[in-house]
Amino acid sequence: MKPVFERVALIGIGLIGSSLAHVIRKKKLAAEITGYARSEATRAKAVEIGLVDRVFPSAAEAVAGADLVILCSPVGTYGALAKEIASALKPGAILTDVGSVKGAVVRDVLPHVPAGVHFIPGHPIAGTEQSGPEAGFAELFINRWCIVTPLADSDPTAVERLTEFWRGCGSNVETMTPEHHDLVLAITSHLPHLIAYNIVSTAADLEEVTSSEVIKYSAGGFRDFTRIAASDPTMWRDVFLNNKDAVLEMLGRFSEDLSVLQRAIRWGDGETLFNLFSRSRQIRRGIIAAGQDTAAPDFGRSAAKLQ
Amino acid sequence: MKPVFERVALIGIGLIGSSLAHVIRKKKLAAEITGYARSEATRAKAVEIGLVDRVFPSAAEAVAGADLVILCSPVGTYGALAKEIASALKPGAILTDVGSVKGAVVRDVLPHVPAGVHFIPGHPIAGTEQSGPEAGFAELFINRWCIVTPLADSDPTAVERLTEFWRGCGSNVETMTPEHHDLVLAITSHLPHLIAYNIVSTAADLEEVTSSEVIKYSAGGFRDFTRIAASDPTMWRDVFLNNKDAVLEMLGRFSEDLSVLQRAIRWGDGETLFNLFSRSRQIRRGIIAAGQDTAAPDFGRSAAKLQ
Repeated sequence: MKPVFERVALIGIGLIGSSLAHVIRKKKLAAEITGYARSEATRAKAVEIGLVDRVFPSAAEAVAGADLVILCSPVGTYGALAKEIASALKPGAILTDVGSVKGAVVRDVLPHVPAGVHFIPGHPIAGTEQSGPEAGFAELFINRWCIVTPLADSDPTAVERLTEFWRGCGSNVETMTPEHHDLVLAITSHLPHLIAYNIVSTAADLEEVTSSEVIKYSAGGFRDFTRIAASDPTMWRDVFLNNKDAVLEMLGRFSEDLSVLQRAIRWGDGETLFNLFSRSRQIRRGIIAAGQDTAAPDFGRSAAKLQ
Repeated sequence: MKPVFERVALIGIGLIGSSLAHVIRKKKLAAEITGYARSEATRAKAVEIGLVDRVFPSAAEAVAGADLVILCSPVGTYGALAKEIASALKPGAILTDVGSVKGAVVRDVLPHVPAGVHFIPGHPIAGTEQSGPEAGFAELFINRWCIVTPLADSDPTAVERLTEFWRGCGSNVETMTPEHHDLVLAITSHLPHLIAYNIVSTAADLEEVTSSEVIKYSAGGFRDFTRIAASDPTMWRDVFLNNKDAVLEMLGRFSEDLSVLQRAIRWGDGETLFNLFSRSRQIRRGIIAAGQDTAAPDFGRSAAKLQ
């Protein structure tokens, strides 16, 4: 089978970039992979473990001649990177990204994109709480959604090629506008991460209950929050700074709803609590029915054996 | 090996009660198991799948002659149950429970406990989001903490027997006062559940983003919240009504902290966000180091294979 692209350039080689490298190799989605990473240690590691064929200390050199360029660094870096690579982009190339926000990416990148280059933002909804070039694995995108957000004047053929690429990585691809993407992700991803970071921080500040107790008894629920609160701080700082309006809107709703629960607890209103808790079960059932999780207890954590 | 107890009575046969039945059988922790469940369907199921040797439609009958009685129903039912079984309890028996709050259990149960019966509250920190008599499995308590909260005048020998029982179930046992237990659990379990229920509810109310979109893209973080928000509504209503002060205290701190994050997002204060997010990683590392979770990406969710 002919590769989808001749040369792919990965700009940033962290969890997502290195996972892309693995799957591109494994599925032969491109004949050649070039890479750029800001730090020398990452560049050396990327070559050492064979993620890329050639690595460059400048993004402009890495994109030269590539027919697919994927921005895989934190979204806060995209504007400067776009400016730097603009004149080196090959005419007819597709420029995309993997950022968790899309409106701000269009705002920062689009002004630099030369005519003849197809800029089509994207977002694979896949990740773990690990980061760095050694965190990647080829299966990361399997059965995960990838949202592609074409612009009003995007070339349909280029959109189709990018879609084909993500399908090759194992993703299910959906398209929507950048604005709608940012609303959807604000509630399904950004707010949950913010809440998780916050509760971990609240727990860390307690004096009556020690940190070691919080850690020791975390299996009661807290543990699930800490997992997503261990995600990359730079990436998430950039997400919140770049999806401000949607996140603040969702946060406002969340806080209003929480006040209702708080009042129900204070006044012993068991009916309000019960009704709200019952409704939440339905949503969970929908997620399992949609195949986005397993109903197995404890996420199938290691099946412990009795001695 | 001689069983720890001759006869154990399980009052309530849901997730915890049925898991106890399984492990008691498997590890021969008692010679006989009697059971009580409020609903006839649960009683029939408990006999059908062999959870108990004998099942009774009244709690008083179930506890007669038992040397260990374990309350396994929602904590809101304990007061009435204690009153009902009081005169049927065997002198020298140990009366314990598995409730997620301890102060309120002492308040509701202790007044009914006759002299000569050892009332020692307990709380196995183990569970899944499943409920009912078919949800149980023998391995539920393995390597999970069980907090035993003896009263000031509890008999040390009885405490030791109960501790031995939980160790037999696979648990690691820790003792503390009921009051301290309620503070520790408020932050490690009760607040996380409340927050999870709340965010699922907020998501369900959105009109700009549909429920099906929330479900479809839940892998971005939301999914982890829905799991714990699928827990038993009756149990959790009772937890919040019965650990009101500690939960309201933690909720107050959580909301204060969230306001700081909200303000940082509104004013574009990336440094505050970054510092707070970085600190959260340390807590997560502590949890992994303490063996309360695995560092494997995605909790070791099914290892997908490339086609």
